[in-house]
Amino acid sequence: MPRHLDYFTDQLTDEQRRTRTFLEIGRRAGNFPSAIARTADEDSEVSVWCSNDYLGMGQHPAVLAAVHDAVARFGAGSGGSRNIGGTNHRHVELERELADWHGKDAALLFTSGYTANDGALAVIAGNPEGTVVFSDELNHASIIDGLRRSGAQKRIFRHNDVAHLAELLAQADPEAPKLIVLESVYSMSGDVAPLAEIAELAHQYGATTFLDEVHAIGMYGPEGAGIAPREGIADRFDVIMGTLAKGLGTAGGYIAGPQDLIDAVRTLSRAFVFTTSLPPATAAGALAAVRHLRTSEAERQSLARNAQLLHRLLDEADVPYLSSDSHIVSALVGDDALCKQASALLLDRHKIYVQAINAPSVRAGEELLRIAPSATHTEADVQKFAEALAGIWQELEIATASDRAAGRTSAVKELV
Amino acid sequence: MPRHLDYFTDQLTDEQRRTRTFLEIGRRAGNFPSAIARTADEDSEVSVWCSNDYLGMGQHPAVLAAVHDAVARFGAGSGGSRNIGGTNHRHVELERELADWHGKDAALLFTSGYTANDGALAVIAGNPEGTVVFSDELNHASIIDGLRRSGAQKRIFRHNDVAHLAELLAQADPEAPKLIVLESVYSMSGDVAPLAEIAELAHQYGATTFLDEVHAIGMYGPEGAGIAPREGIADRFDVIMGTLAKGLGTAGGYIAGPQDLIDAVRTLSRAFVFTTSLPPATAAGALAAVRHLRTSEAERQSLARNAQLLHRLLDEADVPYLSSDSHIVSALVGDDALCKQASALLLDRHKIYVQAINAPSVRAGEELLRIAPSATHTEADVQKFAEALAGIWQELEIATASDRAAGRTSAVKELV
Ligand SMILES: Cc1ncc(COP(=O)(O)O)c(C=O)c1O
Ligand SMILES: Cc1ncc(COP(=O)(O)O)c(C=O)c1O
Repeated sequence: MPRHLDYFTDQLTDEQRRTRTFLEIGRRAGNFPSAIARTADEDSEVSVWCSNDYLGMGQHPAVLAAVHDAVARFGAGSGGSRNIGGTNHRHVELERELADWHGKDAALLFTSGYTANDGALAVIAGNPEGTVVFSDELNHASIIDGLRRSGAQKRIFRHNDVAHLAELLAQADPEAPKLIVLESVYSMSGDVAPLAEIAELAHQYGATTFLDEVHAIGMYGPEGAGIAPREGIADRFDVIMGTLAKGLGTAGGYIAGPQDLIDAVRTLSRAFVFTTSLPPATAAGALAAVRHLRTSEAERQSLARNAQLLHRLLDEADVPYLSSDSHIVSALVGDDALCKQASALLLDRHKIYVQAINAPSVRAGEELLRIAPSATHTEADVQKFAEALAGIWQELEIATASDRAAGRTSAVKELV
Repeated sequence: MPRHLDYFTDQLTDEQRRTRTFLEIGRRAGNFPSAIARTADEDSEVSVWCSNDYLGMGQHPAVLAAVHDAVARFGAGSGGSRNIGGTNHRHVELERELADWHGKDAALLFTSGYTANDGALAVIAGNPEGTVVFSDELNHASIIDGLRRSGAQKRIFRHNDVAHLAELLAQADPEAPKLIVLESVYSMSGDVAPLAEIAELAHQYGATTFLDEVHAIGMYGPEGAGIAPREGIADRFDVIMGTLAKGLGTAGGYIAGPQDLIDAVRTLSRAFVFTTSLPPATAAGALAAVRHLRTSEAERQSLARNAQLLHRLLDEADVPYLSSDSHIVSALVGDDALCKQASALLLDRHKIYVQAINAPSVRAGEELLRIAPSATHTEADVQKFAEALAGIWQELEIATASDRAAGRTSAVKELV
């Protein structure tokens, strides 16, 4: 008789196991991007170049003060689900602030950005029956999971390809209710969607638009409200989805949109209903972060300066990266082993931490170093980083931008 | 052309909308179970009788100190997913502590108990292909969602019905890998599963056992490790699943089990991989809570005393409740409108907050007041509560235990 549990014995290769060994680090509040990395032999100070706390709000004094205050006032956890004893004043205030920020009727908090996409799309794509969803091929795992859960019919359009989307919309049953789901800044490629053209198509076909601004909120647009408002077309996107865990430096996720839709998700989304709400202190921290970023330009300016400088220095060093549209600078390695070697060398030799991104997070052959400069890096940090990276590119003979233009790709070279 | 968004306009009845109006409360750290309830007209002090922070760990000085310390040290959020910059020392320490507590090789943190069940079962029930899952009919929504996501074949056994489970196991293909999923303390009915008998069946059929101890950890067994260790059969359950949000007073969820299985979930579970990890401060708070509860009996004793007293007083008052197995005391109303009236009267007249639980959280006709005495209530609180409840039972003419024994159920009486 086969035992179910036996299946799990030795399922993973040693290789897989190593890939998923997580670097243990302690970011040092007040000293970002500095962190203490702990390995088997020692603790050492490193500079983090792959954090999603892009603006350093996770260490901002106003955020920390709000968190401390809420912990002292309300305690560590909320004690219940939103419907059963777990709705704190800070949840209500934060939902109001987020709705106002995005110019929508209402907002709804989830325990993470993952559950916000997963839980909201299960309802929004799942109703009414027969809804056809148009989804960008590079949409995040949480979007894919929510759409699967909804059971809706799905049409995948090529990444940022408006003509392909138009074609798919034209082919679909005119009577079918339609939903278009996309990101503004794509998480791995760092490029920005052609929002105006997609909004126009949506309008033409009566499609609802669901826009994941996870890597944009706080960072772009007036008051940091995102790419859609930067383009002056915030009102053309029905539902805005965001996270509290990146630009806002805390944890949690949300959607903002029309009251009736929000009420439906609030009532029907199982990932919203059947779980303990965010700790009030987490909501309080995020609230302080939003309020700060609505009036302060300093963090956005510093992030933009660092991203521009890094793009220029990598251009000079002939290091290829996927897009200069945003602060996400994905340096293309294109080989699994080389990508890990580059990451290890940065850490060992330069005390710089950038995680290697391999399959399944990206497709095989598209392995990359996803570099995230932050508002807390200095110009000197950026310079030092670019030099280190250029050196490693040479040493490991990773394909340069010119190589790639000439059709040459990276060759694996064994390090001794 | 039908617009997708129009579907959401006026989808909910006014009734549904009202049901999902959440009471906004601020629990007062240091003064649990006291909270400030905010309504349209006023703020008032209430006593919370429906919190899942059963032991009051959300206000425990050691927990709050650990949270404050970690916020000051590491900042508000983790800044990344576990694999990309988001593994903090506190995550690693907490996973070690949880594994040790449950006597398992390893543990794995998720952002909530909901995602722990959903994300872990997607992998554990989904592999190997052809796995047949045996699931208690009253299992929590998060278990149901994870099993759906896994795509595994499912056999539902009647609640706590060992004979029925045995029958289903006997009917299944002997060659199919098998998984049994159950809770120890059931969240809405408060009764306890016949763990020893189910473990014996699992052994007989080579089935893996996945036990949700969400409403038991901290509260029962040696060191508060749960019902399975209380029964002396912890080793007969392969995977223990728990939450940090109830007995431990914070937020987050986890599984603990054999190393190979944990590694597989860590690598394959999309709900684990594609999301920002818990704030280090939340992990630090939960770690302090576990450490405290492993050595302190005071909270468990106080909770047990309050639960026993409440059972006795409700027996005396002839108020029916579902089970005396645990501290979850679900008073059976059996009518939607009456249930809401009872909850409203408790709040308005007695400043006692117990949420009415209606469909879809329970089946229609099984509407109830899910009463959760906590370690922070005093004996006098319990007495006052039982009196208030008995008074409302009479006033609203809700069916008593004797009525129910005689086949009579509740009649709706309109309040003026
Ligand atoms: C585009 C996108 N959406 C959603 C998420 C999920 O957000 P969170 O980390 O808050 O779960 C992420 C990242 O994790 C993301 O990159
Ligand atoms: C039995 C059971 N499992 C899992 C959960 C989910 O836990 P969490 O609130 O941490 O998401 C709950 C309650 O919400 C529950 O009652």
